[in-house]
Amino acid sequence: MLILGIDPGSRYCGYGLLQYEGRKVVAAGCDLIDVSKIPDLSERLCVLHDRLSEVIREHKPDQAAMETMFFNKHVQSIFTLGHARGVLLLTLAQNSIPVAEYSPREIKKAVVGNGNANKQQVRFMVSSIFKLSNKQLKDDAYDALAVAFCQFNRTRFMK
Amino acid sequence: MLILGIDPGSRYCGYGLLQYEGRKVVAAGCDLIDVSKIPDLSERLCVLHDRLSEVIREHKPDQAAMETMFFNKHVQSIFTLGHARGVLLLTLAQNSIPVAEYSPREIKKAVVGNGNANKQQVRFMVSSIFKLSNKQLKDDAYDALAVAFCQFNRTRFMK
Repeated sequence: MLILGIDPGSRYCGYGLLQYEGRKVVAAGCDLIDVSKIPDLSERLCVLHDRLSEVIREHKPDQAAMETMFFNKHVQSIFTLGHARGVLLLTLAQNSIPVAEYSPREIKKAVVGNGNANKQQVRFMVSSIFKLSNKQLKDDAYDALAVAFCQFNRTRFMK
Repeated sequence: MLILGIDPGSRYCGYGLLQYEGRKVVAAGCDLIDVSKIPDLSERLCVLHDRLSEVIREHKPDQAAMETMFFNKHVQSIFTLGHARGVLLLTLAQNSIPVAEYSPREIKKAVVGNGNANKQQVRFMVSSIFKLSNKQLKDDAYDALAVAFCQFNRTRFMK
């Protein structure tokens, strides 16, 4: 089974692929869709859609997991993040990939064991779980693997 | 020239087509994309994308106009509205239709002459401009024609 974790953003969108069989879990790849250089929002959304479609075509994930919103951001950021998330959810639905959504708190709890953990702790745990060197990944790619791990955890305990 | 006006929403999305030649302007159709019965947001976004794509294929608008956000709504509504707007902007961009965005205030000013006009005044003016009977249209379709008219007005004065 392959889980596609997504850390949504309208400028940087991290994704991470987690492969598992029973209790064994490995990171099967992760990267950042960087559209920060494109000034126009509509064009950014188009590239996000195209790039995520490519990732799906290439890896054929069975399920996806995505972070919900941080409520403490500025309302304009929430609105723009909504645009990106809408396009990402559309892309998953067009490819019939079911998506689970998790709050930042749920993700931190699954990865670190503490819903109030900071970003460094999450990244440290993602590195240890997946045996990655600390400097290998971009920030949003760590977060994408974290949300995929949260979904893996949920699936494991629901069996 | 054909302008597609869009009143975005994640449950009801109004659209209106405005045809103009010089100063002569007519409503060339309008309707509501009603996805309110679909409980799942991802599925609603898919239907929004498909229905708007159909409207574009059928009518081939030259340009589009869309309302920006109401800042006075609840943050969760703004977030969800962002999802719908993201998908609508993507659909327009995929069809290479340039889109102009207007605030509710700009739209009211263009249609009624007063940025603080209420919904009834906007609808009354849309009915008179386009010679529509008052009961013909659904609310969001009026608003979509209003935003298209705002774009027409802008285009006219920029000549």
